Amino acid sequence: MPQFINSTESLVTDALDGILRTHDLSVLDGYPHIKVILRRQLDKSKVALISGGGSGHEPAHAGFVGPGLLSAAVCGEVFASPSVEAVLAGIMAVTGDAGCLLIVKNYTGDRLNFGLAAERAKALGKRVEMVVVGDDIALPDLPQKRGVAGTLFVHKIAGFMAEQGESLEKVSASAREVAVAARSYGVALDNCTVPGSKKDDRVPNGKAELGLGIHGEPGVQFVDFTDVQQVLQTMLATLLDEQTEDQVMLLNNLGATTPLEMQIVLNTLLQESLASRVRAVIGPAPMMTSLDMHGLSVSLLPAKSAWLDALKAPIACHAWPGCQDVVSVDRQPLPDGLQVHVDEASHDEKMRSLIVDSCDAFMGMQNDLNALDAKTGDGDTGSTVATASRNLKASVDKLPLADSTLLFRAVSDQLSVSMGGSSGVLLAILFSAASDASAAGARDIDAIRKGIVRMMNYGGAEVGDRTMIDALLPAVDSLITTSNFKDAAMAARAGADTTKSMSRARSGRSTYVPESSLQGVTDPGAEAVARYFEMLALRV
Amino acid sequence: MPQFINSTESLVTDALDGILRTHDLSVLDGYPHIKVILRRQLDKSKVALISGGGSGHEPAHAGFVGPGLLSAAVCGEVFASPSVEAVLAGIMAVTGDAGCLLIVKNYTGDRLNFGLAAERAKALGKRVEMVVVGDDIALPDLPQKRGVAGTLFVHKIAGFMAEQGESLEKVSASAREVAVAARSYGVALDNCTVPGSKKDDRVPNGKAELGLGIHGEPGVQFVDFTDVQQVLQTMLATLLDEQTEDQVMLLNNLGATTPLEMQIVLNTLLQESLASRVRAVIGPAPMMTSLDMHGLSVSLLPAKSAWLDALKAPIACHAWPGCQDVVSVDRQPLPDGLQVHVDEASHDEKMRSLIVDSCDAFMGMQNDLNALDAKTGDGDTGSTVATASRNLKASVDKLPLADSTLLFRAVSDQLSVSMGGSSGVLLAILFSAASDASAAGARDIDAIRKGIVRMMNYGGAEVGDRTMIDALLPAVDSLITTSNFKDAAMAARAGADTTKSMSRARSGRSTYVPESSLQGVTDPGAEAVARYFEMLALRV
Repeated sequence: MPQFINSTESLVTDALDGILRTHDLSVLDGYPHIKVILRRQLDKSKVALISGGGSGHEPAHAGFVGPGLLSAAVCGEVFASPSVEAVLAGIMAVTGDAGCLLIVKNYTGDRLNFGLAAERAKALGKRVEMVVVGDDIALPDLPQKRGVAGTLFVHKIAGFMAEQGESLEKVSASAREVAVAARSYGVALDNCTVPGSKKDDRVPNGKAELGLGIHGEPGVQFVDFTDVQQVLQTMLATLLDEQTEDQVMLLNNLGATTPLEMQIVLNTLLQESLASRVRAVIGPAPMMTSLDMHGLSVSLLPAKSAWLDALKAPIACHAWPGCQDVVSVDRQPLPDGLQVHVDEASHDEKMRSLIVDSCDAFMGMQNDLNALDAKTGDGDTGSTVATASRNLKASVDKLPLADSTLLFRAVSDQLSVSMGGSSGVLLAILFSAASDASAAGARDIDAIRKGIVRMMNYGGAEVGDRTMIDALLPAVDSLITTSNFKDAAMAARAGADTTKSMSRARSGRSTYVPESSLQGVTDPGAEAVARYFEMLALRV
Repeated sequence: MPQFINSTESLVTDALDGILRTHDLSVLDGYPHIKVILRRQLDKSKVALISGGGSGHEPAHAGFVGPGLLSAAVCGEVFASPSVEAVLAGIMAVTGDAGCLLIVKNYTGDRLNFGLAAERAKALGKRVEMVVVGDDIALPDLPQKRGVAGTLFVHKIAGFMAEQGESLEKVSASAREVAVAARSYGVALDNCTVPGSKKDDRVPNGKAELGLGIHGEPGVQFVDFTDVQQVLQTMLATLLDEQTEDQVMLLNNLGATTPLEMQIVLNTLLQESLASRVRAVIGPAPMMTSLDMHGLSVSLLPAKSAWLDALKAPIACHAWPGCQDVVSVDRQPLPDGLQVHVDEASHDEKMRSLIVDSCDAFMGMQNDLNALDAKTGDGDTGSTVATASRNLKASVDKLPLADSTLLFRAVSDQLSVSMGGSSGVLLAILFSAASDASAAGARDIDAIRKGIVRMMNYGGAEVGDRTMIDALLPAVDSLITTSNFKDAAMAARAGADTTKSMSRARSGRSTYVPESSLQGVTDPGAEAVARYFEMLALRV
């Protein structure tokens, strides 16, 4: 599976350089061994916060460097801990008299490399504390709980306190309390792809893997996956175990899950046992990802008011999705005016006869138009036109036949409902605009022409685009000029004939039909118009 | 491929409900046919902005409803235009005397349904304008350019103007200007999966598809994909064609591309022909996605100062990733103090002899320890210990042997470099902390004990966890109490023996080894410690 990278060797530094081009951040000059991203402006009178670890979890950790969050992120290669030297460089670069707190996810490599760096920094006179986050409760028997997305709770709450100027002791103590209280659980439908490695296609189709980590490592179990509700219920049973307080929920996209899916997950979570227990939500958003894993994790933290305040405090960092209160869905009534207004029927024998004859004419073309359309489209033009005509004819005595403005409006409304597809909407637009023009005093034929122009506006077709317009516009123009139906019919036929030589449809569904299929075939819409005007010419 | 949904029928309404639970938004009460998301607070004295279209493009369009952006989003089913009735409901719900502007991506269904709704709304007395966005320049021969991510430029600039109280005429005119000027081009390595449909696995492995749309429709061509740089160069050649002005770039994640990849793409773009031409960047972020497509699109807009101001104006909407100035990478020098300080050598014959004997002892255990480790780990404990010992012995005359504080520090530094793996870092932590304790006046053996405790802190192992600690801590404690090396050796051996019956490793790499493999086998680390103390007892 290829990926959008230039080389596996440079991918982490390439990505960090990308971040550096559009953020108020700096990098220590130690590529490729030392990859430390830090704020450009550091207030060393405040406690510095440093996190980091292997890459592949973006936006963690570099994306969370900024005021109110981290002071620096120390980045390793994909899924590999940064070196002791890199962590030490980060500590030395950002730590002032107020000291610094290292926030470390509980993986052996990170604990040790951050740990030794902390010891070295202390020997160099820095005040350094370290908190290890182990929020993953999926593997209850694992002696060392893994650190996953719940780490973000620690970043934000410690970041808020550090920004407030709290002491290293206070920030560290709170960070440890949060780390102990955070609980996370992950689920995936597909594993991640490590750049340059073959993907471990571990998750069988139709299964969900519960309790996986953020490095592609195996989870607790596979379960049959039928829908989101069922799999979330299983997770929540473990997550909510013995929790009695209200919670803040952090909903983390593990990588390749779509925003659409994540919103469905959120909605489902808020309908389950959590419903009355979640006060606020962080996300859904990618925060602590596992490359392109098709999965997500749910993290919970008791909604203590001090923690809630810290989590909600606004910050400029875009990777932090904010912490929103849970509200109920606000449904507003549909506005008035949506129901199609049905005008009272009125009688006009000439108009009635015209409509009936027109409908009969179109119904009679069904097979021929379908045959033409079969060569250049999906073969249903005739049926579409016939169906609409049949419906219109059936309701002719309910129409306001005596008033053009009302009649055009009624025809528009009916075609939009009974004709279907693009052509139904196009003709509805034509008659709707004709009605407006008629209301403004236009003669019927002038109103129709205004309707055609409006239809062309919205539909985008012009003369020469191989559509009904090629016959319709010349016919109507001829009628306006000469008031003669025979001339109009001849103009319509001439226009329809031109479509035979148009090798490329520029609008409508024939756009994608190859040139060879179009050559010599009249556009079915144009043919319908030509035959209609020929009928009118004979009828007059 | 399963997805995180409950049913294909309800997926769009489920997702919208998720958004509604954590945003200051309302929904019109018309599910499932009418899906309109609107701001809770509407200032109808300002021009209303409405966009929408098929779903599957999240966060577009509902995610962009909010002050400074859209007033309402009219959502269809996945990749299907909303109905005329739905659009009309949206217009009627949010439009006041200032009128409304419909921002429509150039697809026939959207043009027609939004168009007819506009006509109906006008007939109902509303002032309605419509702008059609066709920013996709990938298919130069396509008469109707598709509307893709460049639509976001229109949303933000029109949103800014509407918020400023500009008239419908001015907002519409600017929106049209932006729509004409925006240029977009997409690329993908894999197609999207429409929920409930079989995936069209169109993109051959190793190829990139250029110029695809946002509904999974085919692109212009497949090209060999070697790396990001090469494929972006091809796209930029078309995108920058005849553009002479500075540009704003919008970098859109089409779905399942990782944040890591997107940052690499950004960095590569800013190094190419665009480098000196891009003033500001929006994203990278998912804005106008195509479900889970593994792809991205690049959109450009001339960086006119009025447009730049509008794009940069901060808004609260999280789906809008902001518009950042492009800056150069700020590299800061590495901080001082990173280089390991080498203390001057000093002589102490007793200490020299102890170190040499210790190293010889550990080197002599190599094969036995490897054999033990082969049963419970990866068989290299003996080699790791022997290598570190060999190096330490070789440099013994360069060590500050006469000063415990300096000596512990020097041993720590050497082990962290020469031993490798977790054990190297763990022992480096032990000696580093011992050095600190020694500097504070502790006796050597007390300093070592403090070092062990610190190592346990960082490493996470306790007595009973089946590690070297099980032998080391009892031996050192015995030595502190009795000052007798024979007693210490017996304590170490007793401790090592207990590891034989520990059926589960709780720390270190044996954690994942099954119980049956551990039973009756001494932990190799504990064995090394026991043998070492046995050597010391004989030596005294």
